[in-house]
Amino acid sequence: MYPCSCGATILGDSKMTKLQLALDDILLDEALELLDDLEDYVDIVEVGTPFMMQYGMPSVQAIKQKFPEMTVLCDTKIMDAGAYEAEIAFKAGADIITVLGVTDDLTILDCVRVANEYGRQVMIDFICVEDIGQRTQEVADMGVDIVAVHTGVDQQAAGRTPLDDLKEMSQHSGDTLVAVAGGINQDVLTTYLAEHPNIIIIGSGILNAANPVKETEEIVEKMRGRSI
Amino acid sequence: MYPCSCGATILGDSKMTKLQLALDDILLDEALELLDDLEDYVDIVEVGTPFMMQYGMPSVQAIKQKFPEMTVLCDTKIMDAGAYEAEIAFKAGADIITVLGVTDDLTILDCVRVANEYGRQVMIDFICVEDIGQRTQEVADMGVDIVAVHTGVDQQAAGRTPLDDLKEMSQHSGDTLVAVAGGINQDVLTTYLAEHPNIIIIGSGILNAANPVKETEEIVEKMRGRSI
Repeated sequence: MYPCSCGATILGDSKMTKLQLALDDILLDEALELLDDLEDYVDIVEVGTPFMMQYGMPSVQAIKQKFPEMTVLCDTKIMDAGAYEAEIAFKAGADIITVLGVTDDLTILDCVRVANEYGRQVMIDFICVEDIGQRTQEVADMGVDIVAVHTGVDQQAAGRTPLDDLKEMSQHSGDTLVAVAGGINQDVLTTYLAEHPNIIIIGSGILNAANPVKETEEIVEKMRGRSI
Repeated sequence: MYPCSCGATILGDSKMTKLQLALDDILLDEALELLDDLEDYVDIVEVGTPFMMQYGMPSVQAIKQKFPEMTVLCDTKIMDAGAYEAEIAFKAGADIITVLGVTDDLTILDCVRVANEYGRQVMIDFICVEDIGQRTQEVADMGVDIVAVHTGVDQQAAGRTPLDDLKEMSQHSGDTLVAVAGGINQDVLTTYLAEHPNIIIIGSGILNAANPVKETEEIVEKMRGRSI
């Protein structure tokens, strides 16, 4: 019912690592104002899970209405009722949804089917997946568009980083795009860029910076200096 | 900061199985209207995950505002950022939140801590948990209030039911309350009541009935005929 797209279409043909800005601990009005300044730097804007919990789909609609050209990911973290929940987010205008890698294959396959109908994309969030290599191959075979290493906030507090998981995922991802999230900021950016992920997801590393716009400019400059 | 409560307080002292009504595939206005008729029968009203995705916390606030005496569960399915996401739901008025059993212990412990601060409760959703007996014991030791067997919509479509998992969970739950969800309706209710769960969660079994009010009356009559 919608023109079908693929990773390259939504994410652009460039071989450079893309920046995904995660909006979590921020008010909707503040986010819309901040995006005015960051629109040209951010490749994907993420409606984070707590942000979605707070505002629901009107948050996705508001961002899409003000910035129709931006690629919007809704961090739905779908665990069940794949087709139904995916459609809610796609109808609101999300270009990409997330599905948890720990859920069953049927849920993931349903999300992929609905995404294909809408010409949108599915990112698998690998938070708490035990065998990253095996699951990467499995979900890649199911036709998902992006696999995302994700060390959760609570695991970060325990000292874990996503770097080793990223290395393992990249060995098994084939043509599927690879993203990485989990406490990344400018200080550690170079280490992650060295692993050539397609997407680096940064939230508090930008939102909590003294000057988020300047921080983003510097991050993007580092990213554009390297190709993948 | 809030008076502390326990399962017995929120759920009542009765030993009868409680009815949790899951609101998923329904508009907010319709739900508020339906609850006018069902208020006296339903022990817990659940703001389902897709419902929350659609409307955000204003849905929890609207139900609490219209029915301040009702126990409201928000099916947050928390996977990360436990304290932060739990607080969003509790601030909106949720009495109970859900956390995924497949997430890491740190996230569950953070949710329990915040719930205790607010005098609210945590239900663990066991969807896709592999070793139900072991995980039941683990999360019970973490101080969660309720453990919930949950056969997801997509697994139900593949022919699975939550009955065997409920039997296993009940053997390991100790004093922790036990709930069960997954395609339960009046036709199979007696089979589930025979296992004496503390809470039975019904969604489409009521919402999709020809006469939801009559269906609920009949379900509650069967429940009140049996004690646990």
